[in-house]
Formats: sequence, C-alpha cells, structure tokens
Amino acid sequence: MKEKIIEEAERLFWKYGVRTITMDDIARRLAISKKTIYQHFIDKEDIVFHVVKYHIENEVDEVCQLNAVAGNPIEELMLVSDMMRRHADEINPSVMLDIQRYYPKAWGVFLEYKENQIIKDIISNLQRGVNEGLYRTDLDLETMARLRVELLQIGFDEQIFPHHKDMYVVQDQLHHHFVRGILTLKGFEIYNNLKQTSERVQPIIYESK
Amino acid sequence: MKEKIIEEAERLFWKYGVRTITMDDIARRLAISKKTIYQHFIDKEDIVFHVVKYHIENEVDEVCQLNAVAGNPIEELMLVSDMMRRHADEINPSVMLDIQRYYPKAWGVFLEYKENQIIKDIISNLQRGVNEGLYRTDLDLETMARLRVELLQIGFDEQIFPHHKDMYVVQDQLHHHFVRGILTLKGFEIYNNLKQTSERVQPIIYESK
Repeated sequence: MKEKIIEEAERLFWKYGVRTITMDDIARRLAISKKTIYQHFIDKEDIVFHVVKYHIENEVDEVCQLNAVAGNPIEELMLVSDMMRRHADEINPSVMLDIQRYYPKAWGVFLEYKENQIIKDIISNLQRGVNEGLYRTDLDLETMARLRVELLQIGFDEQIFPHHKDMYVVQDQLHHHFVRGILTLKGFEIYNNLKQTSERVQPIIYESK
Repeated sequence: MKEKIIEEAERLFWKYGVRTITMDDIARRLAISKKTIYQHFIDKEDIVFHVVKYHIENEVDEVCQLNAVAGNPIEELMLVSDMMRRHADEINPSVMLDIQRYYPKAWGVFLEYKENQIIKDIISNLQRGVNEGLYRTDLDLETMARLRVELLQIGFDEQIFPHHKDMYVVQDQLHHHFVRGILTLKGFEIYNNLKQTSERVQPIIYESK
C-alpha cells in the first residue's frame, strides 16, 4: 500500500502541483481512508519526501540502464538528456520550485542527489570521453559537470528564456550546444552520425558541420 | 564636479561594496562637503543610479571600439569576454547583488541595458558569424544570446561553482565552451589560430583540436 500511495501522490503532484494536492485528494483517488495514509506517513511533508526519494531512485535506475545501452560517452549524454526531457514533459514546472520553498527535507534529498550522484556521474562521463579522445583534454571536469547540471535546470526557467513559448526548443538548443562545446574532431564525427540517426525519429534540422 | 563625484563613487562602490559606502565617505575622499554632493544628487540611490548609467555608457563605448578592431565575429566574442573579465577583477562580487536587492531604479537601468543592448549585440554577432559560415546555421540566435548573458553572470556565482577558489578558471572554461559550441569547422580553424596567438600573451594550455 505504501508504494501505491507514493505512486499516486507522485502522479498527482507532477500533474497538478505539490501545494494544491491535499491528503484528501490522494485518499479519494485511491478510494482509501485518510487513516490508511496516516498509517504509512506522518504528514504531507513526509509524503513529499518519499515521492522525491522514490522518483530519484527510479531515475538512478533508468540512467544505469541507459548507460549500459550507450555505445560511447556521447551517446550516453544524449540518451540521458532525452530521458530528462521526457520526464520534464510530465512535470508541472512549479513543482520543483514549490518543493524548494516549502518542503526543505525533500529538497535536501534532491540537493544531495545532485551533489553526490548527478555531478559525479557527469564527471565520470567526461573523464571517459577525454580518455577515449572524444572530448577535449583541456576541460575542467567539475566546472563542466556543474555547468551541465545548471543548463538542465535553466532550460525550464522562463525568466531567463522568456522569448520562447516552447521550452523544448530551448532545452534542445542548450543540450546540443553543451555537447558540441566539449567535443574533439574525433568526437564530432561520432556525434554527427548519432544526430543523423536520431533525426530519423525526431525531425529537427541540424547542419552536420 | 558631477562627473568627478560619479567616478569616485564608482571606484569606492566597486572596491568596498555599495552598501558600506556612505555620502560622508564620498565627500571625504573628494575633500568636498556633503552639501556639494546634494547639489548634484537627490540621495545615495540617485548616485548609485548615475554610477550604473555611467558605467554602462563606458562599457558600450568600449564594446564599440573592440568591435571595430576585431577581424571577425569570433575575435569580437573573445575580446568582449576579455574586457568583461578585466572589469570583473575590479568589482566586489557583492555589488551587483546589492544593487539588485536595494537599488531597484539602478537595477532597472542594468536590466534595460541587458535586454536592449547586450542581447541585441550578441544576436548581431551570431547572425554575422552564421552569414560568414563561422557559426552553425542551426543556432536559435536568441536562445544562444540569452545563454551567453546567463553564462557571463553565473561565472561569478560561487553557489553554482563552489569547487573553485579562482573564479577566473570557471569564467574561462564557460567562455571557451560557449564559443566552441557554436562553431562550424571553418570557424574552428579561425578560433584555433586566435587561441594560439592569445596563448603567447596568456599562458593557458588548450589543445588545438
């Protein structure tokens, strides 16, 4: 039951925002009593905390699977980026902001995930890319990893990019620009091949040089 | 006298921070009475406003001169970036944050400058680069211009990049990554030549491919 509550709460939070959804809403959706919810969670903050934790655990699993499939570090970056944009489509943009403001414990889990997992994963990706001659050797790995995380966040920020109604275009531009900026000539060739393959699925026009 | 007060106030603000410097400090430094200051300015907010305006006007002049010297759009980007880092060395990092928080009128001047001048200048640079075959044709110019402005700002943000004591390294990495990310192969060649030339002046090691 606990997992079922978390899953339904996550679905409702992502869709309608964390603040608007009450314990009553969650109970009603699952056709259970509020008492049942309180058997598993202390309060709403506790639910938010578990939702974030559960979401992150799933994301870590998914990233692991993508990394196993990817043929090289460049493809890995592109697959993870696609995954993040797929997730983003499902999330009400206010959610992260509300969690940051009103649910410090849950936000803490996210910050820890960012520092201890995301940044380390990106540094590891960059290091492999450098070793394989795909990325530039003059990259300061931690600066670039932190830039990457920042770009994943600002791509949703309509104050920084107020000119586009479709934030997907912004995210796409930021992602491709990031990858382009770290490649060597050898990396370029692989990247262009990958882009041309993915263009068959996603009809976005890129020049190949 | 008005200009003299602005210049001295600017020097003191940049060095010690906007909030710590009082009207008395400015008067003492110039060996004039506070009454003289009040003949030209309503209050401290008015001085801050004029300092920001004066600073921006000088920066616009300097950018114009650099653009006139630059042989191509890539060199222009690199010269402007060098200029901004030179300016940044003179500025107490708290200044921009304090202006944003406590001097809304002066901050408004900066925001207007950003929207009406900086972003347009960068878009114009990008458009010329695309026309000359130096930058990719698949750039969304306004997204890239706004990214560039954002990068110039976050390069000073020690919360985003807490790992480096020397923020110059971070700014340098962000700048070179930005330029690398927009180039075509033809642009690459020019960029590598420019970097090798500037390396004679600045001994930072970059790989050339």
